[in-house]
Amino acid sequence: MKIALLPGDGIGPEVVAAARRVLDALALPGLVLFEGDVGMAAYRRHGHPLPAETLEMARAADAVLFGAVGDPEGDNLPREHRPEAAILGLRAELGLFANLRPAAGWPGLEHLSPLRPELARGIDLLVVRELNGDVYFGAKGERTNAAGEREGWDSMSYCESEVRRIAHTAFAAAGKRRGRVTSVDKANVLETSRIWRETVVEVARDYPDIRLDHLYVDNAAMQMVRAPGQFDVILTGNLFGDILSDQASAVVGSIGLLPSASLGERTTGHGTFGLYEPIHGSAPDIAGHGKANPLAAILSLAMLLRHSLGREADAGRIERAVAKTLGDGVLGADLGGTASTEQIAAAVVSNLL
Amino acid sequence: MKIALLPGDGIGPEVVAAARRVLDALALPGLVLFEGDVGMAAYRRHGHPLPAETLEMARAADAVLFGAVGDPEGDNLPREHRPEAAILGLRAELGLFANLRPAAGWPGLEHLSPLRPELARGIDLLVVRELNGDVYFGAKGERTNAAGEREGWDSMSYCESEVRRIAHTAFAAAGKRRGRVTSVDKANVLETSRIWRETVVEVARDYPDIRLDHLYVDNAAMQMVRAPGQFDVILTGNLFGDILSDQASAVVGSIGLLPSASLGERTTGHGTFGLYEPIHGSAPDIAGHGKANPLAAILSLAMLLRHSLGREADAGRIERAVAKTLGDGVLGADLGGTASTEQIAAAVVSNLL
Ligand SMILES: CC(C)[C@H](C(=O)O)[C@@H](O)C(=O)O
Ligand SMILES: CC(C)[C@H](C(=O)O)[C@@H](O)C(=O)O
Repeated sequence: MKIALLPGDGIGPEVVAAARRVLDALALPGLVLFEGDVGMAAYRRHGHPLPAETLEMARAADAVLFGAVGDPEGDNLPREHRPEAAILGLRAELGLFANLRPAAGWPGLEHLSPLRPELARGIDLLVVRELNGDVYFGAKGERTNAAGEREGWDSMSYCESEVRRIAHTAFAAAGKRRGRVTSVDKANVLETSRIWRETVVEVARDYPDIRLDHLYVDNAAMQMVRAPGQFDVILTGNLFGDILSDQASAVVGSIGLLPSASLGERTTGHGTFGLYEPIHGSAPDIAGHGKANPLAAILSLAMLLRHSLGREADAGRIERAVAKTLGDGVLGADLGGTASTEQIAAAVVSNLL
Repeated sequence: MKIALLPGDGIGPEVVAAARRVLDALALPGLVLFEGDVGMAAYRRHGHPLPAETLEMARAADAVLFGAVGDPEGDNLPREHRPEAAILGLRAELGLFANLRPAAGWPGLEHLSPLRPELARGIDLLVVRELNGDVYFGAKGERTNAAGEREGWDSMSYCESEVRRIAHTAFAAAGKRRGRVTSVDKANVLETSRIWRETVVEVARDYPDIRLDHLYVDNAAMQMVRAPGQFDVILTGNLFGDILSDQASAVVGSIGLLPSASLGERTTGHGTFGLYEPIHGSAPDIAGHGKANPLAAILSLAMLLRHSLGREADAGRIERAVAKTLGDGVLGADLGGTASTEQIAAAVVSNLL
């Protein structure tokens, strides 16, 4: 079993180091770890945010644990050299088409949500976001229009097979949860959404026990604030998924606790190849001070063990240890506490049963 | 002064009738009213959701007061015959490029927000949404891709002049408010957003007293939940504006109170030509029962008087009458009260000073 660690920028190295401590404590037999440069850190050293060596290392692994990329200096670079190009490149090159972003409040931490407690309590949803298509990866550029002006353009599209595979991911996930899929599109305006909706309806026939409904993205953004407890699995495209999954994180409140998985089609012998990363970004303002909350990275590691290495029991051990750590009041500054990155990681390790 | 009334579908006719009562009570000299069919109502009668007569009537007016379009039956029609085609057609044909959507809590009604009271209290923002471009109006269609599959596609773009005119709208509006513009884009992924951002920065030079910052749309959707009080004017494109403005309405909570204006370039002698509509939709489930809250339509009328007819004093009279009505506890079912459409309209009329 091979895991590639890609710490990246800002607080990425700190939270990945913390997750690694937890991984070491599990003492998994036959596990090999690699570590690679990515993001601005890689650009500074190799002139590219996603060096070929890093990509090869990720490709050769069963799973990737990713920290974060992003750096204020990166904003002035051309798009292909910006730290964000690393994560977009990994998604494309590794065929990571299925982004799973669970958003649920932790019992006892509902006060972190900006929503009123009675709304915050019931949130337990999973955003299944398509990650290889849409306006992200279509042709794009700048041109001069008929009036002689500069015009920026991007192409949006989805074909049936792209929608089909992500829809299967969502319906299968709903089968293990509360059995509901809400597909989000803008079919009253976009042709891309029309194919999306028709294909989702078609795939739904294979899952007679799952209840499917459709929401326009503007309505979904409204419902996510008014009554987020109504959602089980939200199935959507790359662009709407970017917006709605961040909104879902904000609604839950504890963004320092939220993990994510990006899965490909390749199986690893133990599960599915995937990349795992905390939802939070590189947070350059607090980087290097040892105060980043590592729980989202640690919970991303749990997802990695579950989905890519087939180690459900170890994933559960980590998740219970995190729950105990939070229950004991070992909270980082983002959750209103004073525990350092180190202290939180140590608490999780000592809570592993 | 000519106003075209387009009541449309569902509760549209009820709320426009209520707004008309208020308009009648103002007894404006030299005002002429027209009424036209639009939406599903128009499709049933004329075979098209935006009949040529209706478009001509709107074009000949100084302003349009629009109710709502949308009907469950419409979902099965081809896109060009669906009720939504009417509002998209009006925006395109009338050159309504600037959508203004204020979202602010009413004092005393903060409990309607799904947010915690301390967050809900400070919300007072204006979304300035571009309404004539973006992926809404680009070329689009269905094609067969290289693999022989059906593929839906849409083209997104913005050119400099399109961004420039909406940016001027936003900066001018900020000058009359708290002097801040937050431009929202996805410049780390979209070329359309790169032109957007560069052009906004350029326009900002004409407004040295306005503070400009930029947010990616995913971050904006997060901030809108975490700390909506930070926003003054949000400047964004058609698609992101659709999502964020609905999210802003939900965050405020009282969607039955929120008006909107869609302005063109043409001046009317008294102001700017525009179309005014409540944010809420046609609500077919409660249509015809006399329980729709007409205040969003009545406040849309106030915006109409202000922006298109240059009647600031009358706009203020309506807004104060609405505030008094709410303060007196004359609330519709959506606000937790029992007042009917009629009763609310009557209260506003009797509160006009
Ligand atoms: C960094 C950026 C390109 C990326 C995206 O838009 O997908 C991020 O927002 C995310 O959601 O992982
Ligand atoms: C009805 C629909 C086409 C429209 C839009 O997407 O613009 C609506 O959501 C709006 O915001 O006015």
